[in-house]
Amino acid sequence: MGQKGPGLVKQVFIVWKPDRRSPTPIYLQIADRLQHLINQGEYSPGSPLPSERKLAELYGVNRSTIVQAYTELRAHGFIESRPGSKTRVSLHRGRKDQTLPPEWHRYAENGIFLPNTPFLRHIREALAQNPSIIDFASGKLSLNLSPVQEINEIMRNCIYQPEPENDSILGFPPLRRALSAFLRKYRGIDASPDSILITSGSQQALYLITQCLLSPGDAVAVESPSYALSLSMFQSAGLRMYRLPVDEHGVRPEGLRTLQKKYRIQMLFVNPNFQNPTGTLLQQERKRLLLETAGKLRLPIVEDDQFSLTAYDINSPAPLKAESDAVNTLYIGSFSKIAASGLRIGWIVAPSSVIKRLADARRQMDLGFSVIPQQIAAEFMESRYFDPHMDKLRQELIRKRDKAAEALRKHLGDLVEFTVPQGGLHLWCKIVPEVTDSRLLDEALRQGVAFVPGSVYGAEAGYMRLTYARPGAYDIEPGIIRLASAVRNAVTYKKI
Amino acid sequence: MGQKGPGLVKQVFIVWKPDRRSPTPIYLQIADRLQHLINQGEYSPGSPLPSERKLAELYGVNRSTIVQAYTELRAHGFIESRPGSKTRVSLHRGRKDQTLPPEWHRYAENGIFLPNTPFLRHIREALAQNPSIIDFASGKLSLNLSPVQEINEIMRNCIYQPEPENDSILGFPPLRRALSAFLRKYRGIDASPDSILITSGSQQALYLITQCLLSPGDAVAVESPSYALSLSMFQSAGLRMYRLPVDEHGVRPEGLRTLQKKYRIQMLFVNPNFQNPTGTLLQQERKRLLLETAGKLRLPIVEDDQFSLTAYDINSPAPLKAESDAVNTLYIGSFSKIAASGLRIGWIVAPSSVIKRLADARRQMDLGFSVIPQQIAAEFMESRYFDPHMDKLRQELIRKRDKAAEALRKHLGDLVEFTVPQGGLHLWCKIVPEVTDSRLLDEALRQGVAFVPGSVYGAEAGYMRLTYARPGAYDIEPGIIRLASAVRNAVTYKKI
Ligand SMILES: Cc1ncc(COP(=O)(O)O)c(C=O)c1O
Ligand SMILES: Cc1ncc(COP(=O)(O)O)c(C=O)c1O
Repeated sequence: MGQKGPGLVKQVFIVWKPDRRSPTPIYLQIADRLQHLINQGEYSPGSPLPSERKLAELYGVNRSTIVQAYTELRAHGFIESRPGSKTRVSLHRGRKDQTLPPEWHRYAENGIFLPNTPFLRHIREALAQNPSIIDFASGKLSLNLSPVQEINEIMRNCIYQPEPENDSILGFPPLRRALSAFLRKYRGIDASPDSILITSGSQQALYLITQCLLSPGDAVAVESPSYALSLSMFQSAGLRMYRLPVDEHGVRPEGLRTLQKKYRIQMLFVNPNFQNPTGTLLQQERKRLLLETAGKLRLPIVEDDQFSLTAYDINSPAPLKAESDAVNTLYIGSFSKIAASGLRIGWIVAPSSVIKRLADARRQMDLGFSVIPQQIAAEFMESRYFDPHMDKLRQELIRKRDKAAEALRKHLGDLVEFTVPQGGLHLWCKIVPEVTDSRLLDEALRQGVAFVPGSVYGAEAGYMRLTYARPGAYDIEPGIIRLASAVRNAVTYKKI
Repeated sequence: MGQKGPGLVKQVFIVWKPDRRSPTPIYLQIADRLQHLINQGEYSPGSPLPSERKLAELYGVNRSTIVQAYTELRAHGFIESRPGSKTRVSLHRGRKDQTLPPEWHRYAENGIFLPNTPFLRHIREALAQNPSIIDFASGKLSLNLSPVQEINEIMRNCIYQPEPENDSILGFPPLRRALSAFLRKYRGIDASPDSILITSGSQQALYLITQCLLSPGDAVAVESPSYALSLSMFQSAGLRMYRLPVDEHGVRPEGLRTLQKKYRIQMLFVNPNFQNPTGTLLQQERKRLLLETAGKLRLPIVEDDQFSLTAYDINSPAPLKAESDAVNTLYIGSFSKIAASGLRIGWIVAPSSVIKRLADARRQMDLGFSVIPQQIAAEFMESRYFDPHMDKLRQELIRKRDKAAEALRKHLGDLVEFTVPQGGLHLWCKIVPEVTDSRLLDEALRQGVAFVPGSVYGAEAGYMRLTYARPGAYDIEPGIIRLASAVRNAVTYKKI
């Protein structure tokens, strides 16, 4: 290493090299090394540092790694660069009297979480600022469809008792028992209380699964389009996402085997019953094919079953998990879309090795979940209020869906195409003429109506998700009228 | 690249190489490549694959990278190895009728979360199985110190109202307003409601900060010893932790500048008032030095202020955040240690750019927090119950602390050393003779008493954390008697 040959003692110059087997990233090792040299006085304040190219050669790394190391040192004020001149050791680093707040802005750019799509933030801000906007965007029930009185009735009689048992890491035991009975009765799923983990909504269930059962770089298959906040979460978790297309009969399972062979898919995420955003119901034959393919591939399926109990037909569709051969299926459900998103109650049904792992990791996130909403949910689902509430909910959703479909036909004529959904909260609508999503959304917000552009769900431009469940029934037609003029304006604008 | 020279056309063999600038990890690129070759039939079922060494050379990577790539393919059943023979392409991969459940066990080993320390799981399981164990281990209030009746009174009069405004991404607005007033009145902190984010306990506050404001590989400074679940969480987040020692006057700030210069510390985590686990109060001069040093280094301090309101002296110590120059401080608090851990109410006070970032990321984790416990907390902290509750809590904690200190002196004589804490829930106890932590814990559980070994908090062997706040007052002396025989047995055992 720099020695010219045996016997020839000139200068034994051992070049420091990063250690590729160390868990510390290479660029950090290099930044550490440079900082050491600066601290030692090898490079004094104001003196120039080697060029990126030169250092890259010296340390046997890519130039981009040196760029990262320099960025790191620059962010901490150890070095400085000005456009057109060399990178130098900072001059004022030594001054002791300088007190400035931390660079919060820089911290806020750290971490694994990618920002959520700006469309959603934009819509949320518009709704908060202007309450007169008719809201087809928020993917939830209107307030009058939530059993608010019933929840208040239950809460009045509820007694908070912090028993040690209630602290169970899997969630409030009576709620897990109630859910076990509920899943058997309403969903045909056989799940013991110990195979159920209570989560803070099904969002946390999805989050726990991606954080604990998958690793960055893993490949997953998702429906295209699919639930927006799952997409951003998968991206934040560093997963590689591969798409299975959804048509009017739900996701198409034929492509799964090929995807798996090609990319070693580790997990499949589906929302088979009245999918968000398309509202489609997965065909029975496709359900079978999906289960069989996943079975042969030993591929876990995560079934997100938010909406099946809202089926407008009296026979609500069975979840995959109810099939006898659904050993591959992790099942996720939630109270948000059938009762109250304000309770934040969700659940996962999984084999106990999986449940234990998720529950253990969860302690590092939030130490579990307040017992009070869990108590209320347990009582509500076992109460005499539950069935009448569900009946009323279905009736009202049908009424709203019909109003929305009718208004769309009347006011948007042949500018839109859609399939009338048979359950769920959403209507998926294709705009026939060419429009730009952002243009249409701006126009709609200006007209006083909100929807979510399909691109948020990974669809191509020109789709809208309309949550007819959200506005009041009497606001539906006026909302669609506003939407119609927005569509016309956006289309016209485009032509000019 | 394999070409022998100009003009000499033999075989232009371009060797595939991994792309070092791609975000996909190298081993996954190699696994993809090999799978491609297998799918193409380059390697047919049953045929041997190149040795790890050979492939490493070919692709210009470490052998360990090839080992990882092979592990990946093996886990998916594409290749097989038997001890003493070559790695081969799987034979039965082609069979279509084979249906087995996924290898859940393997999935459960994925993800970024390291398992929590086995000591804590062991203790939790022992407590669940045997209710007669006297519990100095669980770091919380006994049930009778929680304002259970008051909470029930408030809950009975509480009305759940899912107003759109209540859905605020920062937490229930009236709770943020109540907290703003609370922090001013009781903690001398000036925080507007918009600089407060409600979290599911302070655990989630810590989690959000590590996940959103830091990146894997970043260096942080922590107190040594410090709160156990923060240590495992920092490890899971891939942070490099550097320790600042805690003595009887709290953490020692002198080492901070050196640590920062050496490792580019990005954040400092402290629990200055009645620290968990040591119960120490950070000296006023040290507080000043800490703030000044952090100010000069532009280093954010995360101040976890769980216990300051439990101060047994009527003047509870001021948090760092109350100082006029605490611009570096992110402040975390919680209801868990002063009222009810069952409400799971915590908070962060931070500059609004930071709050916005945390709140946005949080949507990907759990979409926020049920409004009901937030309503109850808001009413409780503004109610006439709050001051009398805090007075009673302090009285009872003093009584329990005195009982514990007295019993330790009486029954463990000069086998232990400790400083009597002036606030908080915990007593930190050094065992003078040499003992093994696991041996002592087993012995204690057998005698019917639980504590947490100091090593869980990163301390050397031979320390115990005793949460005197947890057992009933009348169980304290009997518990210490059991502990005394456990210590004697463990020490004797050691000698044999
Ligand atoms: C398909 C799907 N999964 C999960 C969620 C998360 O809902 P929650 O966390 O309220 O259960 C939603 C909410 O819109 C959803 O549509
Ligand atoms: C120092 C410290 N921080 C944070 C926590 C988390 O508590 P919680 O999430 O209940 O507020 C604890 C609990 O023991 C603690 O001791």
